Amino acid sequence: MAHKRFSKNKAKRNVFSSPGTLQYVGREVLENSSVRLIEFDDQFERELNIIDIQNSLKIKDTKHIKWIEIDGSHDEAIIQKIGQNFGLHPLVQEDILNTLSKPKIEYFDKGQLFVVMKTINFNSENFELEIEQVGIILIDKTHLISFQEQNNNDIFQPIIDRIKASIGKTRKNNADYLLFSLMDLIIDNYFLTLEKITETLETIEDSIFTEPNEDHQTQLYTIKRVLANFRKNVFPLREMLSSLINEGSDGLDASSIVYFRDLQDHIIQILDGIESSREIADSLMNFHLSQLSNRMNSVMKTLTVFTAIFMPLGFVAGIYGMNFKHMPELEHQNGYFITLGIMLAIGVGLLGYFKWKKYV
Amino acid sequence: MAHKRFSKNKAKRNVFSSPGTLQYVGREVLENSSVRLIEFDDQFERELNIIDIQNSLKIKDTKHIKWIEIDGSHDEAIIQKIGQNFGLHPLVQEDILNTLSKPKIEYFDKGQLFVVMKTINFNSENFELEIEQVGIILIDKTHLISFQEQNNNDIFQPIIDRIKASIGKTRKNNADYLLFSLMDLIIDNYFLTLEKITETLETIEDSIFTEPNEDHQTQLYTIKRVLANFRKNVFPLREMLSSLINEGSDGLDASSIVYFRDLQDHIIQILDGIESSREIADSLMNFHLSQLSNRMNSVMKTLTVFTAIFMPLGFVAGIYGMNFKHMPELEHQNGYFITLGIMLAIGVGLLGYFKWKKYV
Amino acid sequence: MAHKRFSKNKAKRNVFSSPGTLQYVGREVLENSSVRLIEFDDQFERELNIIDIQNSLKIKDTKHIKWIEIDGSHDEAIIQKIGQNFGLHPLVQEDILNTLSKPKIEYFDKGQLFVVMKTINFNSENFELEIEQVGIILIDKTHLISFQEQNNNDIFQPIIDRIKASIGKTRKNNADYLLFSLMDLIIDNYFLTLEKITETLETIEDSIFTEPNEDHQTQLYTIKRVLANFRKNVFPLREMLSSLINEGSDGLDASSIVYFRDLQDHIIQILDGIESSREIADSLMNFHLSQLSNRMNSVMKTLTVFTAIFMPLGFVAGIYGMNFKHMPELEHQNGYFITLGIMLAIGVGLLGYFKWKKYV
Amino acid sequence: MAHKRFSKNKAKRNVFSSPGTLQYVGREVLENSSVRLIEFDDQFERELNIIDIQNSLKIKDTKHIKWIEIDGSHDEAIIQKIGQNFGLHPLVQEDILNTLSKPKIEYFDKGQLFVVMKTINFNSENFELEIEQVGIILIDKTHLISFQEQNNNDIFQPIIDRIKASIGKTRKNNADYLLFSLMDLIIDNYFLTLEKITETLETIEDSIFTEPNEDHQTQLYTIKRVLANFRKNVFPLREMLSSLINEGSDGLDASSIVYFRDLQDHIIQILDGIESSREIADSLMNFHLSQLSNRMNSVMKTLTVFTAIFMPLGFVAGIYGMNFKHMPELEHQNGYFITLGIMLAIGVGLLGYFKWKKYV
Amino acid sequence: MAHKRFSKNKAKRNVFSSPGTLQYVGREVLENSSVRLIEFDDQFERELNIIDIQNSLKIKDTKHIKWIEIDGSHDEAIIQKIGQNFGLHPLVQEDILNTLSKPKIEYFDKGQLFVVMKTINFNSENFELEIEQVGIILIDKTHLISFQEQNNNDIFQPIIDRIKASIGKTRKNNADYLLFSLMDLIIDNYFLTLEKITETLETIEDSIFTEPNEDHQTQLYTIKRVLANFRKNVFPLREMLSSLINEGSDGLDASSIVYFRDLQDHIIQILDGIESSREIADSLMNFHLSQLSNRMNSVMKTLTVFTAIFMPLGFVAGIYGMNFKHMPELEHQNGYFITLGIMLAIGVGLLGYFKWKKYV
Repeated sequence: MAHKRFSKNKAKRNVFSSPGTLQYVGREVLENSSVRLIEFDDQFERELNIIDIQNSLKIKDTKHIKWIEIDGSHDEAIIQKIGQNFGLHPLVQEDILNTLSKPKIEYFDKGQLFVVMKTINFNSENFELEIEQVGIILIDKTHLISFQEQNNNDIFQPIIDRIKASIGKTRKNNADYLLFSLMDLIIDNYFLTLEKITETLETIEDSIFTEPNEDHQTQLYTIKRVLANFRKNVFPLREMLSSLINEGSDGLDASSIVYFRDLQDHIIQILDGIESSREIADSLMNFHLSQLSNRMNSVMKTLTVFTAIFMPLGFVAGIYGMNFKHMPELEHQNGYFITLGIMLAIGVGLLGYFKWKKYV
Repeated sequence: MAHKRFSKNKAKRNVFSSPGTLQYVGREVLENSSVRLIEFDDQFERELNIIDIQNSLKIKDTKHIKWIEIDGSHDEAIIQKIGQNFGLHPLVQEDILNTLSKPKIEYFDKGQLFVVMKTINFNSENFELEIEQVGIILIDKTHLISFQEQNNNDIFQPIIDRIKASIGKTRKNNADYLLFSLMDLIIDNYFLTLEKITETLETIEDSIFTEPNEDHQTQLYTIKRVLANFRKNVFPLREMLSSLINEGSDGLDASSIVYFRDLQDHIIQILDGIESSREIADSLMNFHLSQLSNRMNSVMKTLTVFTAIFMPLGFVAGIYGMNFKHMPELEHQNGYFITLGIMLAIGVGLLGYFKWKKYV
Repeated sequence: MAHKRFSKNKAKRNVFSSPGTLQYVGREVLENSSVRLIEFDDQFERELNIIDIQNSLKIKDTKHIKWIEIDGSHDEAIIQKIGQNFGLHPLVQEDILNTLSKPKIEYFDKGQLFVVMKTINFNSENFELEIEQVGIILIDKTHLISFQEQNNNDIFQPIIDRIKASIGKTRKNNADYLLFSLMDLIIDNYFLTLEKITETLETIEDSIFTEPNEDHQTQLYTIKRVLANFRKNVFPLREMLSSLINEGSDGLDASSIVYFRDLQDHIIQILDGIESSREIADSLMNFHLSQLSNRMNSVMKTLTVFTAIFMPLGFVAGIYGMNFKHMPELEHQNGYFITLGIMLAIGVGLLGYFKWKKYV
Repeated sequence: MAHKRFSKNKAKRNVFSSPGTLQYVGREVLENSSVRLIEFDDQFERELNIIDIQNSLKIKDTKHIKWIEIDGSHDEAIIQKIGQNFGLHPLVQEDILNTLSKPKIEYFDKGQLFVVMKTINFNSENFELEIEQVGIILIDKTHLISFQEQNNNDIFQPIIDRIKASIGKTRKNNADYLLFSLMDLIIDNYFLTLEKITETLETIEDSIFTEPNEDHQTQLYTIKRVLANFRKNVFPLREMLSSLINEGSDGLDASSIVYFRDLQDHIIQILDGIESSREIADSLMNFHLSQLSNRMNSVMKTLTVFTAIFMPLGFVAGIYGMNFKHMPELEHQNGYFITLGIMLAIGVGLLGYFKWKKYV
Repeated sequence: MAHKRFSKNKAKRNVFSSPGTLQYVGREVLENSSVRLIEFDDQFERELNIIDIQNSLKIKDTKHIKWIEIDGSHDEAIIQKIGQNFGLHPLVQEDILNTLSKPKIEYFDKGQLFVVMKTINFNSENFELEIEQVGIILIDKTHLISFQEQNNNDIFQPIIDRIKASIGKTRKNNADYLLFSLMDLIIDNYFLTLEKITETLETIEDSIFTEPNEDHQTQLYTIKRVLANFRKNVFPLREMLSSLINEGSDGLDASSIVYFRDLQDHIIQILDGIESSREIADSLMNFHLSQLSNRMNSVMKTLTVFTAIFMPLGFVAGIYGMNFKHMPELEHQNGYFITLGIMLAIGVGLLGYFKWKKYV
């Protein structure tokens, strides 16, 4: 796992720009953006690629539910055209272009509902969160617009497939149920992300139990950064869903509120999961430090045993290496062997002493 | 105590599955499930093994209290039949099959009450919580259904025995008292579990006081994980019992509320106990680390004393091992013995110095 | 201070026993229990030892205030007789027998007030809390029953003495003032206990400042355990006194409420004192660890200085201990003394260097 | 800075004394107490030393504002006489004599207001707080009594001077403005005290940055104790001023409330300052420990470098000090110099290696 | 980065001065102050340098919006003149002169609004916050006065430029919009400051990941001090804006409230950012300590390996350096080479052992 600056992808926000100017804020994007129109109702379904937005989308009178799905929220021209077409508030247009917005749910006149969420994936290779922004605007009961960054790999495809295959309740309900489906899909993904992080944590835990090394601290530090980032991109939804549920909105059927309560439950579960992962990471950090400290202890004991045994032995050898004229032991026939024996006794004795003191 | 991944038994939840599909989520189960019917009232009691659910349970008209006790909540067919028979909400059926549900108390139309609880045992051999799910549905004042996982070892047997022996108030009351009895049994078990954990903590504490070693940190870490897990499976009941007590339910006699208040008191005691055990575990961790640090200190002192005494002595021996032509001491008749004496003085002096500095 | 298991006196509670059975829970008690009746009013006072409870206590019609003081709350027979005599709720009887109850204040019909408190002493020899339970029942404005464990050493004797000597306001007031006096006595004792603990902490602090050693950590750990235990046995009273003060009780004169507010103030002071002692203990633990770390530093420096001075010297001696045929220095007339001089220079130089680096 | 027991000045409180007895609690005081009467209004001002309290103070009918200023709150006789004269509640008299009271503001009948505050000075020599108690009683709009401990050095002198010199608004207002002036003086002093503590902290910080040593930890520990003590003697005022401001008092003009709001703002600033000093002390403790740990690292590196360089060199010398008959190198003409060269190479090589590893 | 006392610029406040005296509190300032008058409305705009305040500003009757912009809030004479001219409360005048005021928003009679804010810059060279005070007084819908310290480098120049160039909405709105613009400019600057701090943190993080050294702890400590200081100078605005928004003010159009809500959102974002930076700094401190501990471990292992390998080898050499008469090995023809071989074997063996134990 290589370390990467935690904000290297962070786009600079231009704090001094005058409010009201449409201006993309985010990573550089090369590809063109694409606009799709998915039209459906109980009986009918079709998908169109839109090129001439102004003409294709002008008509707001069909009976079908219309989902305008835009890939590439960096395209200021498209955003502007869509904005004019559907009478979007300038602030909404600005927020779509600014991919650094916080998650939020905002109400506008005429029951318009504007939702900003993040798709979040955990890359367990390099311990990084891959975060992209999704904007959803519920215009009225039959119109919904969604914006995603180009690099999103079409996260809404499963729902388009379900609509085509006529699975689930999407085709039988209004656009507010479609909004719920999209949000539900993104939030369900959070569970997968959380699971990946948890699994990574467990792998680290296993590894610390079996063989603690220096990298673990770095890994745990990075996981904590990831969890803090994850939380930051989910947390605001809790309160916003709560106020949506309590106060309702013109754009939502009263009967749809239950679905959003379900979403809120999921958000709370996610946040609980993040919190408990964070606690585990903290515990692991402490545990890991204590393991390192244990190892240090063991290294010190090895050092002490070697030093304390060989120092006295070396000293004895040193004594009989002295060149005094008169050293009676040196003359003794078995002096050498007796000395070796004494050395052995000292060595064994000290070793026994350290065994008793649990140093060995 | 072997380390085991903290979620090795965790079954994957299928986040993208469409809601409404009945599908077992949990450990693999091999045995067949069994269904028992316990019928009783003040005067009468009998127990039946049910094989043909659809016919046996159809009649809802008897005067007796009927307790349908199902072992094996993995059997989708049985759940479905029971569900059709008693008109259970699809969500309830789904939750019974999902053994990863959180504990909860839910209200449904017609006074139905749905309770999910966990039986929790602490295995002090391998420091693991053994958690199994119990679902209880109070249909009305005479019908109650309980679901337990196959491997539960019939935790409800004591109550069946009491009913048969006509001990206690169960036979004199409605099904809501039976619900209380079942919940009470499970919660009483929590006290035993908490006590086992506390005893394990005390054993560890004793052991740290007498002879701290490297395993203690691992044990305390595992205990903390166990306590966090324990808490997670008990905590939600507190608030849910509180709202049950405050708001009541159609299915409960007003006079039964006091019993549930008693349950709530117990839950709070359990949670207090968990909290204080957690604090003890934290204190012990810190204390243990300080003990290890003390040992390190003591190892260092041993090393220092050996080094600091034998280095100078070895140096003296080294001097008189030099081969200079003209070294007057070497010629001296008693040079050797005088040198030995000096060495002894140096050694004793240094030893005294270190005794004074409390190194020895 | 010997370490003792923190719950060695803990009596097992029988969680599965059926509610309603009177059964003593607590330490084993050998002696017989005794029952005293203290009767008094403004003019009159007498003390009787009661043997035949059923006859002696039957009459509830005297004008005097009657205080039935029972030593030995383990005697199930006495509790039962008293209970029948005064119409005590079975739950109250159960709680008196269970010496593991938490402190509490409970209301019953007819203005009866049931108080459970703990007498708490700190044994500064073995760092242990000696906790005993006291139960007080205010029957009505002229009857009060108190229960204490046999081993309590008559904690209420000062009040009996005051009644006999007619000191203070007890004889001029109703039984609710007597209740206040008893509770006040127990709570005043908490101040002494807290003071003893604080003094022990200060002794430890002094000792850490002058000569930190390994036992301090153990002592501080034990003090923290003691403080947590102390708090657990006092804390519940705060809220319970608060609700007694706010809601009053049939058994209390409105004018008596001020006294109980005074008790609450004292409880809050005690809890503040416990909290601040706990903070001091925590600070001391950290401070003590830093002192140990300082000592470690100093040991390491000693080791380093000895090693770094004698290693080079020993090396020089080693060089001239080599047996090469051609070593010009060895032939030099003053080689030996020059070498000794060089060694001295090296030693002094290194010592100066370490003095400059503040190692010595 | 010498360490002193943190409660050595603490006077014992007699917990078992019967309430209502007037009894001085505090340090022993030798001097006599003095009573001064300062009378003033817009036009007039005089100061009298009072000896015969009962006669001098009896008349309550003058138009002037009367401030009875008492030095020496240990004199039970004076307190009693003053109490009788002005109809003070026995509890107030008791609290004045008890110099261990907490700071408080209490209301009594007839708009009497009783204020207990502490003058707090920080002695930066021995790191100790010098705390003395001041009691102020606002009798009515023209009478105010203040009590201070003898050793207070006349803290109110500046206000007496201002009254004499007719500076400020004191002479133009009622006694409640005088109360405000006295409290303001004491609280302004807290800023000085806080500043002294902060300066001491900064001196310690500087010293830790330049040369961390063992005393810093002790100093920071003591500062934290001082701050906790400071806070304990200021904190209660916040809430009490708040309730005074919200509920007012009969003794205060509505227009005076703004002044007390100003006092409350100052108290909050003081508490914020204490809190942030505490955080700084905590951060410094951690920082200091990390500095010590750095030094330890550096000591270890020195040790390692010396050992790792001279051990191999010594070994080489040891080899050629062996006395084997046949050792070809020894015979070599330049063996000695070649060996010295090799040793130099080893030494330089190892030194380079450790330089590269940043040990040196 | 050099360490500097954290309050070296702190000006002493004179706590005992009598309230109401105008007196500058802050750094010493040498230059003269300047006063500019910017007049504008939709159609018209001009800028005047004011020398004779009393005459130039007397007329309050023009239709244009008048912005009196004062550089140098130390000039007591100017403040006083301005104060007299516009009827400013003495307290406001005092607060402008006291550059140590906390940020605040205060209301005065006649809809006057007094705002104190701080311009905050982070100097990433010496890790210091450069804080200066700005005071803004909204007199009425056409008059606004702003005060800045001389050394501010004209922070309001961008707005003056915008007014001159007629960019944005300032010229089309009342003075309350101008107030918003000024506050917005200052708050936008906070984002830049926060970003600089965050970047510095990231640089430190990078540096810790690649090569942790002793300075990092100092840097992180300083950053935490900076963040605490930053927060202290922003935090009070949150609550004050909140009460401004909730309660409004006579001086503000109802339609302007939305702008202030926007400011509040920004303040909250800033505070969130500060908080999360603080958490990162804390995590980094811990991480850094664990890295240092790892390094210590590695140093210890190096020491141990060198010692444990060369001690036994040196001992062997020592044995054959002894001078015993009878040592058979010494006589052996290949004794020397055999011994060298044995030494090699011991060395390689021990090295292998330490490799296996991961010491090398």
